[in-house]
Amino acid sequence: MTLTGKNLIAGEWLGETANGFVAIDAALNEPMTTKFADATEQEVEKAIAAAHNAFVGYSELSAVKRAAFLRTIGEQIMALGDELITTACQETGLPQARIQGERGRTIGQLGLFADLLEKGEYQGVIDLADATREPLPKPDTRLGYLPLGVVGVFAASNFPLAFSTAGGDTASALAAGCPVIMKAHAAHPGTAELVARAISTAISICELEQGVFSLIQGKNYAIASQIVTHPLVKAVGFTGSERVGMILQAQINERAEPIPFYGELGSVNPQFIMPNKLQQEGESLGQGLVASLLMGQGQFCTSPGIWTYVEDNNSDIFERAAIASIKASSAGVMLTPAIAATYQSAVKEWQSIENVTLLAQGQTSEASHLCQAALFATDLATFKANSQLHEEVFGSCALIVRCKNFDEMLSFVELLKGNLTASIHGTDADLNESCLIARAVAHKVGRLIYNQMPTGVEVCASMNHGGPFPASTDLRTTSVGSEAIKRFQRPICYQNMPVQLLPELLRN
Amino acid sequence: MTLTGKNLIAGEWLGETANGFVAIDAALNEPMTTKFADATEQEVEKAIAAAHNAFVGYSELSAVKRAAFLRTIGEQIMALGDELITTACQETGLPQARIQGERGRTIGQLGLFADLLEKGEYQGVIDLADATREPLPKPDTRLGYLPLGVVGVFAASNFPLAFSTAGGDTASALAAGCPVIMKAHAAHPGTAELVARAISTAISICELEQGVFSLIQGKNYAIASQIVTHPLVKAVGFTGSERVGMILQAQINERAEPIPFYGELGSVNPQFIMPNKLQQEGESLGQGLVASLLMGQGQFCTSPGIWTYVEDNNSDIFERAAIASIKASSAGVMLTPAIAATYQSAVKEWQSIENVTLLAQGQTSEASHLCQAALFATDLATFKANSQLHEEVFGSCALIVRCKNFDEMLSFVELLKGNLTASIHGTDADLNESCLIARAVAHKVGRLIYNQMPTGVEVCASMNHGGPFPASTDLRTTSVGSEAIKRFQRPICYQNMPVQLLPELLRN
Repeated sequence: MTLTGKNLIAGEWLGETANGFVAIDAALNEPMTTKFADATEQEVEKAIAAAHNAFVGYSELSAVKRAAFLRTIGEQIMALGDELITTACQETGLPQARIQGERGRTIGQLGLFADLLEKGEYQGVIDLADATREPLPKPDTRLGYLPLGVVGVFAASNFPLAFSTAGGDTASALAAGCPVIMKAHAAHPGTAELVARAISTAISICELEQGVFSLIQGKNYAIASQIVTHPLVKAVGFTGSERVGMILQAQINERAEPIPFYGELGSVNPQFIMPNKLQQEGESLGQGLVASLLMGQGQFCTSPGIWTYVEDNNSDIFERAAIASIKASSAGVMLTPAIAATYQSAVKEWQSIENVTLLAQGQTSEASHLCQAALFATDLATFKANSQLHEEVFGSCALIVRCKNFDEMLSFVELLKGNLTASIHGTDADLNESCLIARAVAHKVGRLIYNQMPTGVEVCASMNHGGPFPASTDLRTTSVGSEAIKRFQRPICYQNMPVQLLPELLRN
Repeated sequence: MTLTGKNLIAGEWLGETANGFVAIDAALNEPMTTKFADATEQEVEKAIAAAHNAFVGYSELSAVKRAAFLRTIGEQIMALGDELITTACQETGLPQARIQGERGRTIGQLGLFADLLEKGEYQGVIDLADATREPLPKPDTRLGYLPLGVVGVFAASNFPLAFSTAGGDTASALAAGCPVIMKAHAAHPGTAELVARAISTAISICELEQGVFSLIQGKNYAIASQIVTHPLVKAVGFTGSERVGMILQAQINERAEPIPFYGELGSVNPQFIMPNKLQQEGESLGQGLVASLLMGQGQFCTSPGIWTYVEDNNSDIFERAAIASIKASSAGVMLTPAIAATYQSAVKEWQSIENVTLLAQGQTSEASHLCQAALFATDLATFKANSQLHEEVFGSCALIVRCKNFDEMLSFVELLKGNLTASIHGTDADLNESCLIARAVAHKVGRLIYNQMPTGVEVCASMNHGGPFPASTDLRTTSVGSEAIKRFQRPICYQNMPVQLLPELLRN
């Protein structure tokens, strides 16, 4: 089917594409043909007003019907067939197997929330009345949850499906009973249009109001500002860079009414390698960390960006193995030309820092838009003195911080900003030291991992994908797993209510 | 025991009181004798640094030991004896029975969190490993919770015990494992010092680090700013006016790292009176609403500030009963001269609004600092046109919005800002209309009440004391009840952890 290049505004495809923007074929580094319309202020207003009007009705839809809607979205995404895969691969440069896997995960996420809704969308708390209590009778009080209202969601560059149009934020907001205004990522607008088509079809099949979902296309920053500052928008989800996330945060801060902002921004995902592990598995660990770093060309939020250990004879073996793996890696396609340029300039900047050594780079390519992996090393003092080394470099670039002793490793923890994850690699003989690291680093991360790589995020009830700033702007929440629904709900206490006025879940 | 007038900085009583401020004896409207020291920048810095240093150790204290600490605080508050009651009554003008009741509630709140900790401080989620899962094995993932870090708490003017030094915010933060920096309210510094003494004694008895709690005295606004913008402060709790709350919010917005701000600000607590209820119980309901309005001289955050019904013959009976009750009420002492002045000026301003009728006032008093209750009435159009009528007047002032028909009553709901509570007063014959009101007003309130008054907040697991802005700056949380602990915790996922590195609760 031909792409329209238009915005989906509460069921209507609207917009003037003639002067629109185009996506880039990431592998070829060439503009694609379809022109996409920047949404106008009126179109965004129309979408938000329609979402607000649809809110109360949608919020009152039974949990079972919301579950059916989520599953129908999944079916309609599958029904898009190969066109979705081809489009997403072309717009992002990600390989077919990865996009197919991501489609599976996206549908799995929708199913996870559908399961949750079918099992009971939340756990109510009921405290019955007690007329005999002294000095005053106890009223009947019951705690339930309501959806927040219209949610604005911003698609991520690096997950065109699982963190975009029908991704985790959309799925959890729709599950909670909130209409969604989705701002597509300008790097994969065609993928967004296809998925929006699937959602729109699902809305029709389930006989819901079309205002429940709108897709906003655009490269114009005013669109983002309009969405996040709109009085009828009651929460915002965003996955992207710290720079852009903090621009949105600043705009949200100007609102008369504070609203939750769920920005997942940056993470270096520190890797702690303990002495006995280094001795016993130095070579395979060096290879394994590089393999994790190279996944998706390092464009994962959980990519292992900083590694640390206490230097000894075994660290040479580890470093040699890592260096060999880096050198053997091919240059790779990045998601967008801008991401490639930012990556290349960060690698160049690190090379200019005194006492930072470039240990290895991946193979070169004649195509200047392809990026090589890079592995650097430094000491703790240099790390401490150079704050740019503390920032995430989005791509396959890692830094080894060589500590002189275990105390230095503990000091390294103190220097870290917030992170999505940290891994401790150790053996039983390292347990005491691992425990000390775990105690300290727990307060810096959303997920603490032992002897596994940070890349790969389970989608389940016990997952936490978030963490202290800048990993997340709201560390009390997760953007992956079934707990993510709680971002778009809030408590309400019903006191002394007749059964007819209580929600189903609180009637028992 | 003589009051020192000093700040409790991590176990030491510090400060220069010579040029300090004094509290006002509310009933007499006269300055009291003890001088209190505005904390210096250095003292605040010292308190926060000590709290930060105490954090990891305190956070690792077992839940049972934290529970014992909370109970010991309660015992030490009781051990303060009559001096606490006398001081609080004098500083706030609240009657002895009320302060005694509030002391009981304060100790009850500490006990509620202690019970929670003893039962299991949170519900972990455990998803076991599955090595056989395709295409990739499932790792062991376990979801637990960690405390946020140092919490800044601001005491409320209207609850010198239950929402102040050892009040709900402090109790829930300490329960969560967070050290507390308490900014005392300048209207009741002596009460604050006494309770801080009890907490300090409890810290010694339980052999904790004194940095776990500090009391900051002061009238200087720079102190508040220093606390909320300090990089080591990780959450802030506040109960007070919308004006002051939004000043703090703006300062928090300037931080590099966003942190949760729990501000409980303002609420008009609308009362919806349905036709059959009006007919059957108009007189007693008129008296009952006035009784609720007069509680604590209207200085409750849940005071019923706006009442509405569809005008008919029965509304006359209701209004006559309410007018008689208002007229019979004595002028009363307010918490502070500033609150009295603000109340009197709001009542005066409302009298000047066209189409707003002053139905009745309470008895006058020769003492100009005593305030009379006031009851106003208007129509929906006037209410809609005058935004000052939508704001909370802190004190015994209520406004009746007389609707011409039920549609007007539904439009009235749309005009409301966020509220802590709303009550629907109806009979079975009103159920259909009550249901329509409940559906609409649920999205404007944190607690929805049927046939009961809004004043009186149960302290239990199913309570929600919060709501859409300006009731709260974070509608996802409650400041009363055991769920309040969640404001100071955040999730962490442990992946593939050896049992030695897991928290106790996640080991099974």
